[in-house]
Amino acid sequence: MGKTSQGKKSQGKKVSTKPPSGMRDFLPEDIARRQHVIGIVREVFDRYGFVPIETPAIENLSTLLGKYGEEGDQLLYRLLHRRDVLARALADDEVTEATLADKGLRYDLTVPLARVVAEYGALPKFFKRYQIQPVWRADRPGKGRFREFYQCDVDITGTTSLVAEAEVCAAAAEVLGELGFEDFELRLNHRELLRAMIRAAGVDEALEGSALIAVDKLDKIGLEGVKQELVERGLSEQSAAHLLGLVCCEQLLEPGTPIYEFVDKQQSLTWGILGIATLSEHEESPQHVVVLEFLKRLLHGDEKAVAVLDELALLCELLSATPAGPRVRLFPALARGLSYYTGAIFEVAVPDLGSSLAGGGRYDDLVGMFGKREVPAVGMALGLERILVVMEQRGMFPSLPGGPEVLVCWLDVDVAEVLKSAHALRGQGVRVEVYPESAKLKKQLGYADSDGVKAPIAAILGADEVKAGAVTLKHLASGEQERGVPLADAGRVIRGWLDRAQG
Amino acid sequence: MGKTSQGKKSQGKKVSTKPPSGMRDFLPEDIARRQHVIGIVREVFDRYGFVPIETPAIENLSTLLGKYGEEGDQLLYRLLHRRDVLARALADDEVTEATLADKGLRYDLTVPLARVVAEYGALPKFFKRYQIQPVWRADRPGKGRFREFYQCDVDITGTTSLVAEAEVCAAAAEVLGELGFEDFELRLNHRELLRAMIRAAGVDEALEGSALIAVDKLDKIGLEGVKQELVERGLSEQSAAHLLGLVCCEQLLEPGTPIYEFVDKQQSLTWGILGIATLSEHEESPQHVVVLEFLKRLLHGDEKAVAVLDELALLCELLSATPAGPRVRLFPALARGLSYYTGAIFEVAVPDLGSSLAGGGRYDDLVGMFGKREVPAVGMALGLERILVVMEQRGMFPSLPGGPEVLVCWLDVDVAEVLKSAHALRGQGVRVEVYPESAKLKKQLGYADSDGVKAPIAAILGADEVKAGAVTLKHLASGEQERGVPLADAGRVIRGWLDRAQG
Repeated sequence: MGKTSQGKKSQGKKVSTKPPSGMRDFLPEDIARRQHVIGIVREVFDRYGFVPIETPAIENLSTLLGKYGEEGDQLLYRLLHRRDVLARALADDEVTEATLADKGLRYDLTVPLARVVAEYGALPKFFKRYQIQPVWRADRPGKGRFREFYQCDVDITGTTSLVAEAEVCAAAAEVLGELGFEDFELRLNHRELLRAMIRAAGVDEALEGSALIAVDKLDKIGLEGVKQELVERGLSEQSAAHLLGLVCCEQLLEPGTPIYEFVDKQQSLTWGILGIATLSEHEESPQHVVVLEFLKRLLHGDEKAVAVLDELALLCELLSATPAGPRVRLFPALARGLSYYTGAIFEVAVPDLGSSLAGGGRYDDLVGMFGKREVPAVGMALGLERILVVMEQRGMFPSLPGGPEVLVCWLDVDVAEVLKSAHALRGQGVRVEVYPESAKLKKQLGYADSDGVKAPIAAILGADEVKAGAVTLKHLASGEQERGVPLADAGRVIRGWLDRAQG
Repeated sequence: MGKTSQGKKSQGKKVSTKPPSGMRDFLPEDIARRQHVIGIVREVFDRYGFVPIETPAIENLSTLLGKYGEEGDQLLYRLLHRRDVLARALADDEVTEATLADKGLRYDLTVPLARVVAEYGALPKFFKRYQIQPVWRADRPGKGRFREFYQCDVDITGTTSLVAEAEVCAAAAEVLGELGFEDFELRLNHRELLRAMIRAAGVDEALEGSALIAVDKLDKIGLEGVKQELVERGLSEQSAAHLLGLVCCEQLLEPGTPIYEFVDKQQSLTWGILGIATLSEHEESPQHVVVLEFLKRLLHGDEKAVAVLDELALLCELLSATPAGPRVRLFPALARGLSYYTGAIFEVAVPDLGSSLAGGGRYDDLVGMFGKREVPAVGMALGLERILVVMEQRGMFPSLPGGPEVLVCWLDVDVAEVLKSAHALRGQGVRVEVYPESAKLKKQLGYADSDGVKAPIAAILGADEVKAGAVTLKHLASGEQERGVPLADAGRVIRGWLDRAQG
């Protein structure tokens, strides 16, 4: 079997063989787990009547810029111009990021969807699409944070009906349920509720976006940190405290909780009384009913606030008719970083992960930003990598068999005969690897059992077997052996052994 | 169901919503076809004992550069440095492509595999991996040529045994067979045979690589074009003619074919006589036997040439034991553009496509180029996009049902009840979409039947149905209707209708 190969020899210079920082190689065991999760995601999304699309990794920067907020724009990967275009850019007086690139890698799957909806007029009026693809962000890598990661997005465009919110959340909840998650929380908020709370806190409208960015960090930097940042961003001490009190109104329902250290004494007295009244009237009610009622009292007199609280109440009612129902928790502090949200926003959290497993919301203006037509939309993105991290930590994966079921070992026979036998076994639906070199049987059997191969069965071919059109089958774990099994029967015997081992 | 949404309004400025040049959006119908092909590719590769891996889209340029030849390097997409690193690069006296980027998008799946094999010591000795991912090349887009396209790669590392070549080619042939291709040709050649022909033509060894690049264009620019380019690249008229004669030796077997216009009169007489002798001795033999025998006579006296012809004969014998057997054609003019090949090279061609459906070869030095360890390897890449193009042109796709099977339509009922019924149907395995808005029944039914939705069945919910825990089912094509089907039975009725329609 020798080969005449006389190509260039190794240059001997060592080059790093690690993937770039924040990126990963997935070996077969990883892929089995990823495909297990993706398979369930697809199945559930299909069942909800969503249909798949895919978009290019590369988008024009004109598509991407200005959609994610300042931080998002900075995390975009840009593709360097090439050849003449690069030469012209470099010959310019001023050379900047903007003159060196006009394309970048997609940052999420929502903006590409908005572009697709703007572009293709023939899509269904209510376009229910899912999309499972990687996205790229030049973020600081960390635990469960990567620079290349998969998102599984599910969105409905073309309607402002809350049925869309409910279906999107229900699909996400059903995926997580089928994956085996039993303790996740679907956090619910609304951009208009956030604005109402900002208004109620007496914050200048111009500071609204800036205040949201600070509130979004509550998870990471805590009450003290957010208060400080709010003040740095131009809010008065009083407004900052007031806003914190409102977004943490759940804590206000319990006297003595940390939030009371941050709010005005006088104000807290009023809030405390409202809280006691709300609680006493809604003793047996679910969390969202109590919090919505409490907020109605805190924000009374603001018509817009009352409207959005009614909307959230209706959404909670719809969700209660779906698998998401038992997971719902109203979470007024939820801000979601991306700037394109306009309505309800959601996040899925589990206790043992600092960040979220999924997030989304309504973005009624994003499609219109392309200047072609206005199309309302709402969606949710499941973070595949984080789901995998938690499932791994918790040991939630079933046994996921992969790799060869049979290694064909051979001794003193024509290699063409070996390939013929392998072909016959494959024709019977068996996953077959062939030991590629001439070697002692013991070495071949050892290889079958080695790490990364772990073929449970060896099919041995010697001169006798080839003559008889048969194989000798050996079950490696038990040592059980059947000699001279006719090739035509071998698949059945192998399947029997494998089923027995699984059963 | 109204929504309070008062986000930013459209800026009115039109932004292109097309994907970037050479890239494509895949809508649901496209995805169904892609997944059909990818599903079969996976199934066959699994059956051959290959295991899947995935690598990042982004690689260090140190990994990518110098592996593909000069043209390949120029087609790499490079990622612009960011922030401080970019600022420092721009502040330098000399700003070039090299100072502005150190990462790029992967150009193929072979170099990433070589990196993986160099990096992970615990992989099986014979690593049989497949990988189905997109690659990016900043090529001039054309028919079936894109800047982002999927490759389906199958490779075996760790052995120089020709069993590896045979298994890789067999797997590719089996995939194409299962997809329904009946007329493809597996073209076979060897880098060492090309070198032997170049030697025989009296070409300076230093011009070898350059001559190969010209020969690689035979498909595109024809005999005259290649001859001219060979001369431009420094070969004598005589050497160019001699080399052309050798790589087109199949034509030499038939007097009067075009090649005789390009070769020396005296030489062609000798070749003609050798050809007649070969043909008369191998009248009934397969094409590869005749061509190998003829080449043995043309290159006699060159020991290396004889060794590689023997190797090719053995490979053909092994292939004859596999599904690739009937497809094999020895093709001495096959050069394959990539510079990393060292041994056998292959290409799959069909009559109605100018370019190839698949290509590959042996590359024993690529892993060693990372300076860690030498690992021989051989593989084949199936070009997903070209396979799809030909299957589309030939109408080779089976019916691929997707999208919702049932649209839930509703009138005068509580929307939460609608969602509950949809959930019940989904629980019975039916793909269900819910009409999201309140509308006349006629409008809802019209939507079920509209393009891009095409739900074959409507499940109608009115006050009576909700009260009875039932639905009215309507088969839209036939108009058949069943009133008041209990929800628990609806899945069965729906499945019956769908099966009948397919049967």
